[in-house]
Amino acid sequence: MNYDEISIGDSASFAKTLTESDIYLFAGITGDLNPAHVNAVAAGEGMFKQRIAHGMLSASFISTVLAMHLPGPGTIYVSQEVQFRAPVFIGDTLTARAEAVEKLEQRRWVKFHTTVTNQDGKVVVDGHAVVIPPK
Amino acid sequence: MNYDEISIGDSASFAKTLTESDIYLFAGITGDLNPAHVNAVAAGEGMFKQRIAHGMLSASFISTVLAMHLPGPGTIYVSQEVQFRAPVFIGDTLTARAEAVEKLEQRRWVKFHTTVTNQDGKVVVDGHAVVIPPK
Amino acid sequence: MNYDEISIGDSASFAKTLTESDIYLFAGITGDLNPAHVNAVAAGEGMFKQRIAHGMLSASFISTVLAMHLPGPGTIYVSQEVQFRAPVFIGDTLTARAEAVEKLEQRRWVKFHTTVTNQDGKVVVDGHAVVIPPK
Amino acid sequence: MNYDEISIGDSASFAKTLTESDIYLFAGITGDLNPAHVNAVAAGEGMFKQRIAHGMLSASFISTVLAMHLPGPGTIYVSQEVQFRAPVFIGDTLTARAEAVEKLEQRRWVKFHTTVTNQDGKVVVDGHAVVIPPK
Repeated sequence: MNYDEISIGDSASFAKTLTESDIYLFAGITGDLNPAHVNAVAAGEGMFKQRIAHGMLSASFISTVLAMHLPGPGTIYVSQEVQFRAPVFIGDTLTARAEAVEKLEQRRWVKFHTTVTNQDGKVVVDGHAVVIPPK
Repeated sequence: MNYDEISIGDSASFAKTLTESDIYLFAGITGDLNPAHVNAVAAGEGMFKQRIAHGMLSASFISTVLAMHLPGPGTIYVSQEVQFRAPVFIGDTLTARAEAVEKLEQRRWVKFHTTVTNQDGKVVVDGHAVVIPPK
Repeated sequence: MNYDEISIGDSASFAKTLTESDIYLFAGITGDLNPAHVNAVAAGEGMFKQRIAHGMLSASFISTVLAMHLPGPGTIYVSQEVQFRAPVFIGDTLTARAEAVEKLEQRRWVKFHTTVTNQDGKVVVDGHAVVIPPK
Repeated sequence: MNYDEISIGDSASFAKTLTESDIYLFAGITGDLNPAHVNAVAAGEGMFKQRIAHGMLSASFISTVLAMHLPGPGTIYVSQEVQFRAPVFIGDTLTARAEAVEKLEQRRWVKFHTTVTNQDGKVVVDGHAVVIPPK
């Protein structure tokens, strides 16, 4: 969808159940093998009592919504801002959602409110993205 | 490193050459199979003439620095804000760096200036993170 | 750490919970698709009543300790000798540990006692490594 | 093959071209993200002028021969001793080979001479394995 086709309030989402293998592959790719993510014993003694997903892994689902659905292929990612609100555990089903909240007329960029919620409707990641829609 | 041990100006980094397999695994985990990342033909006809890495993949190396090095294991990620400044190509060697720029005394949180640069010293991702250092 | 900085008794460790996906990826990379590792039915009828991890996968965590922690980046691996003492199951949390036990003055190599233990403290891999510390 | 069926001199092999993705997956699984393996710039300035494979990755192909071919499924790995003789680069084609060199009559174990050679016939890993053949 190009700039003119997008209206304030338009939204799209992407959902996936996060698995242990997702977390382990993400750890391997990024090198973030923090015990909170890959050590069940240490994580079990920690704040959340079990291993948690990387915050940036959950946040990355926002990129999926923007790049695949709204505005979709051809979009250029300008910026992303995220607050990590709650832990994500193995087996959680995440829904990333982007809603157009502002059209930056001069540059023809669009600002989205972006959230990731778990299966209980709890917001785990909250924030905003700015993108250049495809021509 | 706990809150008191961190001084303004402290920094740490993590470097890795980004490969095609990193991008493909990231695409598979996140579901972001945008042609810009996984379709060499379409990407070849696009703006950058070749496939590029996901912005959130490059940004995720910042998490590695914060979680593994400074402040290190036990850190809780509060927020991350990133601007995607330049494309990252297969084979680029990225260095993620975090530098403490502000101590939020009341909450005992630390703010870091976070960058990812490529092998030519070009900043590809720029932004800030806020974390709660381990106790 | 260079040769002179290492003292007998110095040690370092690395811990990770081993998952099914680790074992399957290792099987795919190495081509060791022995039923004991990737066939739950056959493994269930076998000696250990369930799938076990590849011995060399557990042993590889020793390499992580030597290369990443002690002596760390720049280390050259000369030799490794391992005895596989006990089976490793999906979900076991392994701690690989290397302790400097001998300095080979003439060649400036260091010998380490290397072990991998599970979450119950049972030694699953035991042996020795010889490395050339970074200059 | 069981103990009685194995004769001194029996051998088997397994060959595979090692790719960048093999090395990166191995790095991710083991947590060994040493710059020598995953940082082309740093490795380029190092001893070997390019990224090298993890020694334990090459050595793991020996396990494949023993577990899949000789003696084959059902084999129990008792011990492995390896010397890392030469670096392995991305794209090298490795052949792991095991040759029965001794039958330990009392315990009914078999000792193998185990090597990994590259496409030029250069031995990159040399050593011995002891296994308990399947009943």
